[in-house]
Amino acid sequence: MLYEINEKALKLEAQGKKIIRLNLGDPDLATPDVIIEAAYDSMKRGKTKYSSSYGELPLREKLAKIHRVSADNVVITPGSKWGVFSTMYLLLKGGGNVIIPTPYWTAYDLIAKTIGAETRLLKTELEDDWQIDLGKLEDMIDAKTRMIILNNPNNPTSKVLDNEVLDGVVDIANQHGVTILSDEVYGTIAFTKTKSILEYEERNNHVLTTGFSKTFTMTGFRIGYIVASKELVDKITKLNQITVNNVPVFIQEAALKALELEKQLSTKIKNEYRERAKMASKKLNAVGLEFTEPQAPFYVFPRKKGLDSEKFTLELLDKGVAVAPGTAFGDYREHFRISLTAPREEIEVALDRICEAL
Amino acid sequence: MLYEINEKALKLEAQGKKIIRLNLGDPDLATPDVIIEAAYDSMKRGKTKYSSSYGELPLREKLAKIHRVSADNVVITPGSKWGVFSTMYLLLKGGGNVIIPTPYWTAYDLIAKTIGAETRLLKTELEDDWQIDLGKLEDMIDAKTRMIILNNPNNPTSKVLDNEVLDGVVDIANQHGVTILSDEVYGTIAFTKTKSILEYEERNNHVLTTGFSKTFTMTGFRIGYIVASKELVDKITKLNQITVNNVPVFIQEAALKALELEKQLSTKIKNEYRERAKMASKKLNAVGLEFTEPQAPFYVFPRKKGLDSEKFTLELLDKGVAVAPGTAFGDYREHFRISLTAPREEIEVALDRICEAL
Repeated sequence: MLYEINEKALKLEAQGKKIIRLNLGDPDLATPDVIIEAAYDSMKRGKTKYSSSYGELPLREKLAKIHRVSADNVVITPGSKWGVFSTMYLLLKGGGNVIIPTPYWTAYDLIAKTIGAETRLLKTELEDDWQIDLGKLEDMIDAKTRMIILNNPNNPTSKVLDNEVLDGVVDIANQHGVTILSDEVYGTIAFTKTKSILEYEERNNHVLTTGFSKTFTMTGFRIGYIVASKELVDKITKLNQITVNNVPVFIQEAALKALELEKQLSTKIKNEYRERAKMASKKLNAVGLEFTEPQAPFYVFPRKKGLDSEKFTLELLDKGVAVAPGTAFGDYREHFRISLTAPREEIEVALDRICEAL
Repeated sequence: MLYEINEKALKLEAQGKKIIRLNLGDPDLATPDVIIEAAYDSMKRGKTKYSSSYGELPLREKLAKIHRVSADNVVITPGSKWGVFSTMYLLLKGGGNVIIPTPYWTAYDLIAKTIGAETRLLKTELEDDWQIDLGKLEDMIDAKTRMIILNNPNNPTSKVLDNEVLDGVVDIANQHGVTILSDEVYGTIAFTKTKSILEYEERNNHVLTTGFSKTFTMTGFRIGYIVASKELVDKITKLNQITVNNVPVFIQEAALKALELEKQLSTKIKNEYRERAKMASKKLNAVGLEFTEPQAPFYVFPRKKGLDSEKFTLELLDKGVAVAPGTAFGDYREHFRISLTAPREEIEVALDRICEAL
């Protein structure tokens, strides 16, 4: 329902209606000028040709340095979503099941269904601070389990996994020889230190997927990357060769420039979102909604007992505010997701309309 | 072997060796400035966000007008290769077989193998002017045949299908309810008028895949499109949503600008390649190689009786010239493919080295 809401919002906008779009993780902030200029400069230098399906070596080497791996472990993807899809496709197309904690990012489940993999949903609850129950996880694993997907920090809860819980998940995965796909796309700009899957010595072929979209407001550039075993990186490169070929080199060079200025650019972005999260929390608390305080940018996932969030979301769209119903993230009919991805004044107006509508 | 040669050539270049790269269809000509400026202008106007997985409506409408279809029949893809992959994936993942005339573009076969579809190779010969034998085609079709792939004009032969042959293929496909995937990426800049699959009244769900890469020297921008039934367009859009999401909007706006200047830009490009093709034909004729005169830009596919083209290609790479062995295109060990995608002086040097090495 996430994509349907978005296409409907786009249609209403095309008809001239003003929609405050808090339904996607697409920041309103402009892409920093320095990144745009780097892309332009690169195009002018003729970086408009086919290139390696691994990605450009200078970018891979820079990322390798950041993550303390070898460039052989890095492959550039057109968005972190392609990283998730290609990893799931290669590891699951032969059959087997994948465990996905909920609430989840819709794409994981849609990808699994498209590939024909069985999904096993592991429900987490607001009451448990959205943490994974390790006992339940272990019970779900069987001989056909190929993968556990972690989204840390989580979309839609903006919650970071507790270190002990993450340690436990990694232990269980290692014991059973299951690959963890760790989607850490919100990790770099989290308000809380987020432990990465790459910090574990015993890797057992775990995979990191992430991107530049959220950290640098580059959503529409479509660039991300995977850190994985050389074997998987080679396989993904072969898949790239017959599908997307390569991310435009001028976009890769813009991403390299972004990394060089990471501290400066991402601190600014993080601070802005921290302010928005505070403001939203205050307003939502005031009307008695239940939620955990965001530990990362973009999302709040409040609950109102008895709410039919699909009905609510559609009605709200007609009032000019787009949010996402909880059902788009699993069995969470009483929840809805607000993306704090509009200017603060607009978010305030939207929050007032939301509170009024409830 | 096509991709291995390319990665090896890139490696040699990274080591400082000068390689004349005639192994890919990646033109040496620069992307026209006006296209680069359009992309830059678009980025500066903030077109750096997520957008519809169908593609931008103004671009789809422009393409619909060109092809005399509705915008509902058009979906934008990150390169025409993604158009081929996504169509093959959706139509073949449930099983069945696909008929591919050879010599073929390597990617078709690799995609089919990756998806797990059975491929049936329909060999065409230099002696038959590379035309498809309709009797053989009909014999190959059975109840499980889902698709016939046409590449018209053809890579690697640069040959256009005769109208009567194409009519015959369409008739047979329609009779048996088989979808034709017509990859016409070299069609707009062919030296000979190329009949499009879209010119047939009785469409039977045939699919056109093509792109901007070859027509406008935009290979590295990664943008193409599909014209198909609304039903397939909707399915491909759903696949886009969980994989590549959307082609950067600023790239789509640059492509729209390119289309507006199509005549001017593509005529220039076509004329340059016509000159190169003439020059190459003359040189290759002089040493007694057998081939058909190119009817489209980029490729010549000569034969020398008794040649082991894989061995020849690797040896030639050490002499600073990259071409592609015939075996990369099917059962054509005595052939090799030369891409006329370098400045004329370089092509001349390379052709001399090739003739010398033979």
